Amino acid sequence: MARHMIIGMHFGSGYGSQPGAWRMPGVDPRNYTNFDSQVRYAQAAERGKFQFLFVPDFPALKGDIATEAPMISVDPMLTLAAVARETTRIGLVATGSATFNEPYNLARQFKALDLMSHGRAGWNAVPTSDPAIAANYGRAIPPRAEKYARLHESIQLVQALWGSWEDGAWMHDQVSGRFADPHKIRPINLQGQHVGSSGPLPLPPSEQGQPVIFQAGGGDQGLIVAGHYASGVIGAVYTIEDARAQRMALRNAAEQAGRDPDEIKFFPGLMTTIAPDRRAALDRRIALNEHTFPERVAYLQHILGLRLDASQLDQPLSRNQLATARPSPQDPRSAHALRIAKEGWSLRDVLAHGIIDYHPVIVGPAVEAADHMQEWFEAGAADGFWVSPDVYEDGIDAFVDGVVPILQERGLFHRDYSGTTLRDHLGAPAQYGLDLRIRQ
Amino acid sequence: MARHMIIGMHFGSGYGSQPGAWRMPGVDPRNYTNFDSQVRYAQAAERGKFQFLFVPDFPALKGDIATEAPMISVDPMLTLAAVARETTRIGLVATGSATFNEPYNLARQFKALDLMSHGRAGWNAVPTSDPAIAANYGRAIPPRAEKYARLHESIQLVQALWGSWEDGAWMHDQVSGRFADPHKIRPINLQGQHVGSSGPLPLPPSEQGQPVIFQAGGGDQGLIVAGHYASGVIGAVYTIEDARAQRMALRNAAEQAGRDPDEIKFFPGLMTTIAPDRRAALDRRIALNEHTFPERVAYLQHILGLRLDASQLDQPLSRNQLATARPSPQDPRSAHALRIAKEGWSLRDVLAHGIIDYHPVIVGPAVEAADHMQEWFEAGAADGFWVSPDVYEDGIDAFVDGVVPILQERGLFHRDYSGTTLRDHLGAPAQYGLDLRIRQ
Repeated sequence: MARHMIIGMHFGSGYGSQPGAWRMPGVDPRNYTNFDSQVRYAQAAERGKFQFLFVPDFPALKGDIATEAPMISVDPMLTLAAVARETTRIGLVATGSATFNEPYNLARQFKALDLMSHGRAGWNAVPTSDPAIAANYGRAIPPRAEKYARLHESIQLVQALWGSWEDGAWMHDQVSGRFADPHKIRPINLQGQHVGSSGPLPLPPSEQGQPVIFQAGGGDQGLIVAGHYASGVIGAVYTIEDARAQRMALRNAAEQAGRDPDEIKFFPGLMTTIAPDRRAALDRRIALNEHTFPERVAYLQHILGLRLDASQLDQPLSRNQLATARPSPQDPRSAHALRIAKEGWSLRDVLAHGIIDYHPVIVGPAVEAADHMQEWFEAGAADGFWVSPDVYEDGIDAFVDGVVPILQERGLFHRDYSGTTLRDHLGAPAQYGLDLRIRQ
Repeated sequence: MARHMIIGMHFGSGYGSQPGAWRMPGVDPRNYTNFDSQVRYAQAAERGKFQFLFVPDFPALKGDIATEAPMISVDPMLTLAAVARETTRIGLVATGSATFNEPYNLARQFKALDLMSHGRAGWNAVPTSDPAIAANYGRAIPPRAEKYARLHESIQLVQALWGSWEDGAWMHDQVSGRFADPHKIRPINLQGQHVGSSGPLPLPPSEQGQPVIFQAGGGDQGLIVAGHYASGVIGAVYTIEDARAQRMALRNAAEQAGRDPDEIKFFPGLMTTIAPDRRAALDRRIALNEHTFPERVAYLQHILGLRLDASQLDQPLSRNQLATARPSPQDPRSAHALRIAKEGWSLRDVLAHGIIDYHPVIVGPAVEAADHMQEWFEAGAADGFWVSPDVYEDGIDAFVDGVVPILQERGLFHRDYSGTTLRDHLGAPAQYGLDLRIRQ
């Protein structure tokens, strides 16, 4: 069987990945709190056979609220509970910090979501780094080593709680009156340096046993966490070379933790503005983001090491500007930015290509996104992607109706779900309880 | 306008209030994790115009799991998120402990539920007392004074976070591009002895501004909390005299905190087994609970101060037994138990009257429940009730189709919702942010 890529969708505040998404025609500007729309967007991704939704988190107010919507869901777990009830296949991965959450509460809510969704939940287990978040909990960010020690303990505790009812413990036999087999329900009695729990968690196995672990970012420490526990890794990487290196590092980390490296899947991000042709796509990005361009001109001038001016938005970079440009080695986006500039686009169009964004950006027809994904996938730079459509209202459909059929045609993406659980979708092995091979 | 009683429904693990509910014919024995059933039960309560669902919590395994279902929802907030999406009017009150939860997390999830339900959320704010729960968090129960100090701080913090976006802060004006007015979004910067938060919480007001506070139990300390913050109090009381005294104490506590005593509503519990006549109702209770009767005989003998024997289940208490009975002043249920025994029922039927249960129990035709509720309501012993049907599958409908029409006929209960929010249903005054009148 051909190896297929796995596609997740970024599921943020309800508008899309671009700052101007909330203002676009046809978009309900109250989508931040409109769960009808959010459910509809999840259903659109499911129609496209996406394997999962990925909900990031940042429990603090961030960005310029005067002009931009928050990028984060009002609450990841409640949002996914709503989605779980109105979808049937798509996986539901939420970010939950181990720094300011109790393992028992994390274990309970993710397992409840797993039960409610019939085996589709995943926990993106992360530490918290931002002082603004710590301040919301009346504390300071702990030292990095302590945060990661607590993260390791928390994941192990949560997995032990998830497994505290053995498979088969829940009998619910009305005839005999045996509700559960108490011999198959055991306390866990784990006490670490930072967190502890006696258990058991009073929840039976789900259709996938227990939720899947995801991981995101975090340098060497994050790599160790991913290697030990993660089935999926949410990446943020700009070049195919970096992606390939990160994927290899993750596979090595899994092997060093005694796992089969195929058990860990790496998903670089991809942002999309899909339109019939490049010009239409650029115009869409301009309509979305032009208010941010003056600020981005300043940043572009910095990473290209030359003088630019917002008054130049209608013109391409001059021969002299292009000649003196020195792409900053500090910013992996700078070489690509210069390449686009050299194609002769106006400065406005250069910015409309999304050269300063969080991930590689496709601004063009569907086939360009499919080509990008195929190239990275076949180069061993990705097991799949997490895709951020520019505007959910029509950007998900543009991907589903444009990119997905091309990938399917090329044999790169499944035509339908072959299983029902997130583990099925990821090809993640069965796991129930703490996997003792992989203790730190 | 006539004063109407307010009715809430106990919303536990998905079966009903009686230990044998999970085994009854027509009940899906997997309802503990079956959210389709739970949504259907919530809809049945809404059909009966109940003002709220009340979800208790006890985050630990409790009871005899070998033969009895857990009494607690897999997760209160996720359960209510599912219900919120598939109901339109009924209030959604969940229990959340301030002892082992961070105020920021509580504030966020309850406000998210409030937004998702369009203004129907309530937080039953409690401390935790049980060492089994503390052990699930790897800790011990803090001293009582500390727990209550943290509870006060937590409620104040949560309310301050709820109010950190002023009404009108969220503009979502697509034409001008103004998403929010940053001058109306303020940090809270509160730091107590036990908890703190900088804020703001990035969530706008709901249709009711912010969730309503409930309180349950807790003696003198609980009374102070209720007096300061609560709009609704979940009671556990056996006699009309005790209920009246508790209601008066709560009204006094509210007054001492500078509030209008009508702002605090007291809801004693009521458990129901409704059937066409007393005999049919008793038989239903016997089918539900007979396996527990041997144990309850032992307890009954204790509170009546006489010798009883499970071999006597078919016979009434003898004249001699009745003569020597001495109802225990320690258990407020003992006088009522003796009264029932003196009516000449067999020992099995005495127990089937629910004389040893958590609340007053109606085992009989609908009119008996209506009479009980009217008597307590008119005596100033209750502003309403929280009702625990014996078996959700048909017990909610029995109440809705039997008891509700009688109460409506008597002018004691509304015929339909007159508002859309939980504050509307409770007659709770508008509140947004921390109410500065009521600081401790």
